[in-house]
Amino acid sequence: MQAIRHDVKPFLDENFLLENRTAEILYHDYAKAQPIIDYHNHLPPDEIASDKCFLNLTAIWLQGDHYKWRAMRTLGVPERFITGEAGGLEKFRKWAETVPFTIRNPLFHWTHLELQRYFGITELLNPKTADGIYEQCSALLKTPEYSTRNLLRKMNVAAVCSTDDPIDTLEYHRQAKADGFEVQFRPAFRPDKAVLIEKEDFPAYLLKLGQAAGMEISSFDTLLEALRTRVDFFDENGCRLSDHGLEQMYAASFTPNQVDSILKKRLAGQGVAPEESQAYQSAVLYELGRMYAAKGWVQQFHLGALRNNSSRMMRQLGPDTGFDSIGDFEQASALARFLNRLDSEDKLAKTILYNLNPRDNEVMATMIGNFNDGSVRGKMQFGSAWWFLDQKDGMEKQLNALSNMGLLSCFIGMLTDSRSFLSFPRHEYFRRLLCNLIGRDVHNGELPDDVEWLGGIVEDICYGNAKDYFGV
Amino acid sequence: MQAIRHDVKPFLDENFLLENRTAEILYHDYAKAQPIIDYHNHLPPDEIASDKCFLNLTAIWLQGDHYKWRAMRTLGVPERFITGEAGGLEKFRKWAETVPFTIRNPLFHWTHLELQRYFGITELLNPKTADGIYEQCSALLKTPEYSTRNLLRKMNVAAVCSTDDPIDTLEYHRQAKADGFEVQFRPAFRPDKAVLIEKEDFPAYLLKLGQAAGMEISSFDTLLEALRTRVDFFDENGCRLSDHGLEQMYAASFTPNQVDSILKKRLAGQGVAPEESQAYQSAVLYELGRMYAAKGWVQQFHLGALRNNSSRMMRQLGPDTGFDSIGDFEQASALARFLNRLDSEDKLAKTILYNLNPRDNEVMATMIGNFNDGSVRGKMQFGSAWWFLDQKDGMEKQLNALSNMGLLSCFIGMLTDSRSFLSFPRHEYFRRLLCNLIGRDVHNGELPDDVEWLGGIVEDICYGNAKDYFGV
Amino acid sequence: MQAIRHDVKPFLDENFLLENRTAEILYHDYAKAQPIIDYHNHLPPDEIASDKCFLNLTAIWLQGDHYKWRAMRTLGVPERFITGEAGGLEKFRKWAETVPFTIRNPLFHWTHLELQRYFGITELLNPKTADGIYEQCSALLKTPEYSTRNLLRKMNVAAVCSTDDPIDTLEYHRQAKADGFEVQFRPAFRPDKAVLIEKEDFPAYLLKLGQAAGMEISSFDTLLEALRTRVDFFDENGCRLSDHGLEQMYAASFTPNQVDSILKKRLAGQGVAPEESQAYQSAVLYELGRMYAAKGWVQQFHLGALRNNSSRMMRQLGPDTGFDSIGDFEQASALARFLNRLDSEDKLAKTILYNLNPRDNEVMATMIGNFNDGSVRGKMQFGSAWWFLDQKDGMEKQLNALSNMGLLSCFIGMLTDSRSFLSFPRHEYFRRLLCNLIGRDVHNGELPDDVEWLGGIVEDICYGNAKDYFGV
Repeated sequence: MQAIRHDVKPFLDENFLLENRTAEILYHDYAKAQPIIDYHNHLPPDEIASDKCFLNLTAIWLQGDHYKWRAMRTLGVPERFITGEAGGLEKFRKWAETVPFTIRNPLFHWTHLELQRYFGITELLNPKTADGIYEQCSALLKTPEYSTRNLLRKMNVAAVCSTDDPIDTLEYHRQAKADGFEVQFRPAFRPDKAVLIEKEDFPAYLLKLGQAAGMEISSFDTLLEALRTRVDFFDENGCRLSDHGLEQMYAASFTPNQVDSILKKRLAGQGVAPEESQAYQSAVLYELGRMYAAKGWVQQFHLGALRNNSSRMMRQLGPDTGFDSIGDFEQASALARFLNRLDSEDKLAKTILYNLNPRDNEVMATMIGNFNDGSVRGKMQFGSAWWFLDQKDGMEKQLNALSNMGLLSCFIGMLTDSRSFLSFPRHEYFRRLLCNLIGRDVHNGELPDDVEWLGGIVEDICYGNAKDYFGV
Repeated sequence: MQAIRHDVKPFLDENFLLENRTAEILYHDYAKAQPIIDYHNHLPPDEIASDKCFLNLTAIWLQGDHYKWRAMRTLGVPERFITGEAGGLEKFRKWAETVPFTIRNPLFHWTHLELQRYFGITELLNPKTADGIYEQCSALLKTPEYSTRNLLRKMNVAAVCSTDDPIDTLEYHRQAKADGFEVQFRPAFRPDKAVLIEKEDFPAYLLKLGQAAGMEISSFDTLLEALRTRVDFFDENGCRLSDHGLEQMYAASFTPNQVDSILKKRLAGQGVAPEESQAYQSAVLYELGRMYAAKGWVQQFHLGALRNNSSRMMRQLGPDTGFDSIGDFEQASALARFLNRLDSEDKLAKTILYNLNPRDNEVMATMIGNFNDGSVRGKMQFGSAWWFLDQKDGMEKQLNALSNMGLLSCFIGMLTDSRSFLSFPRHEYFRRLLCNLIGRDVHNGELPDDVEWLGGIVEDICYGNAKDYFGV
Repeated sequence: MQAIRHDVKPFLDENFLLENRTAEILYHDYAKAQPIIDYHNHLPPDEIASDKCFLNLTAIWLQGDHYKWRAMRTLGVPERFITGEAGGLEKFRKWAETVPFTIRNPLFHWTHLELQRYFGITELLNPKTADGIYEQCSALLKTPEYSTRNLLRKMNVAAVCSTDDPIDTLEYHRQAKADGFEVQFRPAFRPDKAVLIEKEDFPAYLLKLGQAAGMEISSFDTLLEALRTRVDFFDENGCRLSDHGLEQMYAASFTPNQVDSILKKRLAGQGVAPEESQAYQSAVLYELGRMYAAKGWVQQFHLGALRNNSSRMMRQLGPDTGFDSIGDFEQASALARFLNRLDSEDKLAKTILYNLNPRDNEVMATMIGNFNDGSVRGKMQFGSAWWFLDQKDGMEKQLNALSNMGLLSCFIGMLTDSRSFLSFPRHEYFRRLLCNLIGRDVHNGELPDDVEWLGGIVEDICYGNAKDYFGV
């Protein structure tokens, strides 16, 4: 039935995603060799500190990966094989059954890229190959070459920044440093729990935060003091950036007294009205912004996720288990007011804005231009395509919006945002796409055919810009 | 003036929309032969029951087709030739004058695809060819081979679902079945008039609904009883799915008492406040959702149309006459709450979400992932590009969003949503685009070159998935 | 390091942006020779009246160009070299340093297209070529061939419409006409300052408006009388179109008495509540719409900019200096209500809708279809991609949305919206993209290979449609 077809490119070969010779040169001669600065991820610090080895492929690859879980649930796989009681190999077999049905989803590319880059496996994963691949990879994972630190080394990682709660002791970061681990391993400050005043566990969290800061939080002033104490502590432990996950930015009007009352009411166990919540969040985000600026940190805002949509599964599995989606919150006006408040007082830190809804790409790409003040190259950044957008279309749209409405050449590039030690080929994926877009423009006569110059820009976006921006 | 041009592909040939050999094989060897399940359309049941033949090409093609009407109005054609008094041939000539100016609009492709597939005409429609085409097609239409049922057979239709009001007697569906019409012809339950409480004719409609259900609707409880009675009746008559057309989903808080008061107030002829309207709609949509789940139906939601924008033309011609457009309503949060309420009680039916604004593609593509519970393959569906989006760009964007954020392989595919018996080549159009996207990925090395495996997925999306999903 | 690469198209050659032979023919044989009707721009009328020559390249090219300023700020160039004290050559050198970092931004294409078209320079601008280019262009600029009027003639401009405040004397327009300047030079009526009631200088502005109209504005009636007087005056001076810049359209309910009270309150120096502001704006926009219809003018609405986001820089440099971005305001419902009100009374003027957020493309492309009443070909227009969207992606998306949801063939095409006499190659850029899209469709078999017919449509979109639409 199959006719002769010419010009079919092999799947996932060395020129994967590179559609012409210029793109190939840009990738192989410029992008590929650059070290990785993974400035935002969710790697578990303890697993780096202990230089952990994983039991088997399921443990490192399926456990905790809600991208894969969603795909399996979509295909009708019972929860037992996803987050339930089934054994490692059983779960892996279900994943292998799922993979052929993930075509055109980034999971299909990631799966085979990760098998190839970490384990040298070029077979496709499917029910026929499942057991062999499981065995082969699990055997390798038990060897020291596949410890967490060696996995980072294998990928030429220069620096990684985890995501940490203000109350974290950062002991694992210190331990890795004390061990002389040569990859820079830095914490990032993510105080969402001190911001989201409506959450049920907010008062309990402030109690813990106070303990971590060695004080009692009983007012807005003491809260700020506690946060400042923790910012200092994080800074002393090598932190250079913060992160916030918000549905949308808040920049309502408020007075310190008003915010103080709202906080006290909440600490007393009462609920707060939506306007009160917004006033509080506006105040604490503003004050945190000032602290970050004072430290010379970079602040990140991840905007637009609609989380924990299934209360049934939230009760069963907790957050970050695959029940989140893209929201359609209004973003522009409050974000502009927030940034302007800080800018007006010369307290606007270097800032990265990430949107989860791609319809907001152009809002973000133009928002950053309002606050580039000439002080730092690329001070304001439109962050790389994130989460659901972390795929070819999503990244190309982000790169194109940034190119058209800002300066691509100043971009600090890719990050994994991942919980997995096997996700680092996403940097390669990004770099290939970047080189391909530029190569395509050269090929089409939309950019001059000067590979050396363009290769320099590629190197900057892959590594140099982030190095300068974070000072790592 | 015309230079030699190589490589110009003939217009609308057998490889229309297929850009490489892989795409051609996927279409011709896998997609093409699949039967059609047109699970959502607006075909008039009486015209199937009577196996109607049409008088002429204007009667079957222009009458009732507001897509064509809008194009003619844009070009400055007077209403007389559109919905007015002009004769069939006069109107057809105006349409033929319009066609050459519809380039790059789906009307241009649909027009010539329909002429080719149903009538074997490969000429372009324009003023020169108008009279000949009119004559030729009108002559064919008068023959029994062009009766409504034969038109469906000609297109290899296995099942069609119309769209029916709860008060409908469904006599035409029964008649077709009694006749032994071998194409499955099923009703679908569309209770918009029982939901849209603010509409002027709402109280009058509830009177009719009560009559259809053999009872008096005087309270929220009796309304639900009437609806349940009609759901039962539809179910007995082969209905397996419902449909709702809404600007946005509602999922406000409400109590039964509150909703009962609101409804009684409205039945007494009074208006309701916006919050009251939302509470009522939230309640009735929730209760209907529970009924659908209990029956094992599929529920459909068409979200985001801004309808009847010209009150002048609404008075003159009524609804669905070409004066609707795409709205920009907020969709995500209320939709998540609505689905979660039902899911929390294990009362969430299989669901298809359709958005009219393409900026919401990613919201829908990720929303469905929150409620795939592993019970059914592809339980939650992101519906095919609809109405204004029913064209190459619109469909590719929907397919890409679904691919990137869900599982394309579980997709139940295309439907015509049309009022016309000549719209079935839209399935062919969709299938060509689908095969082309997959073929392109193979060609570019983004998918493995395994046509048999990919062809199976194509067959599923064209037919097998819908067959399983609807149990038809 | 550089391997041999075949098929690399030279940068910016005669077939720039044209990817196949059909596209080339459409551009070179049909589009290129069409005169330009630049129906919306911000050229300074006095500089046309005086037939000004520019001192140097910085004066004509960098001064007032906030697109370039934003790029420089992003790269970290101090304000001194942007809007500050630095000399012409110094500033130019900083721009030349910036240009190589603007790859993939429209600035990179515009820069080299403008150097090539106006000055015959095919070198790339960068630090090495900066001084030579500066010298060469500045010398040319001092010659009479580079006066403002000759620059317009050089670009084959048939008509230009500036953007003028209702209080403007229009003396420069009259002077150009009196001089016998053969390019039609018309004013456009932009009464934003009479609409934006919340602005601090609103009462002061109404005082000036009254003076210009020879009356005192003390009520809503007298305001309307003053506006009508100025509309008459503009009309007598050749004006045929108006323009409004708004975050979003307003179409709230209002009574004349209510609006009169709001205006009087504001004239008395008091602030107005948001609902009052909306009622006032709804009323004045509605009344202006009626005036435009009565005159047979075209009305334009530029919707969705979020302006003056940096209050620090607003204080320092004023508006339109590079601190604006794309907003995410709700657009559809109020816009439909506004247009419907006028349409219901048969007072809807020809209308062009421009959106700044590309996520609203489909809302605009379908909104226009609601109010095409068959009276005029292409009465309602979806305006060309604007400001941040004035680039390849942005224009292609606008052209595609318009094609898919309306009639591309009725489109009135491109405008520069620019403050610069060197921006006219943007028409060429647009025409190339237009020809390329159509040529691509022919090449792919999605349009018939009939270049003469398609070439006629191209000519219409480049010139003929605008000529008929504006009656110029």
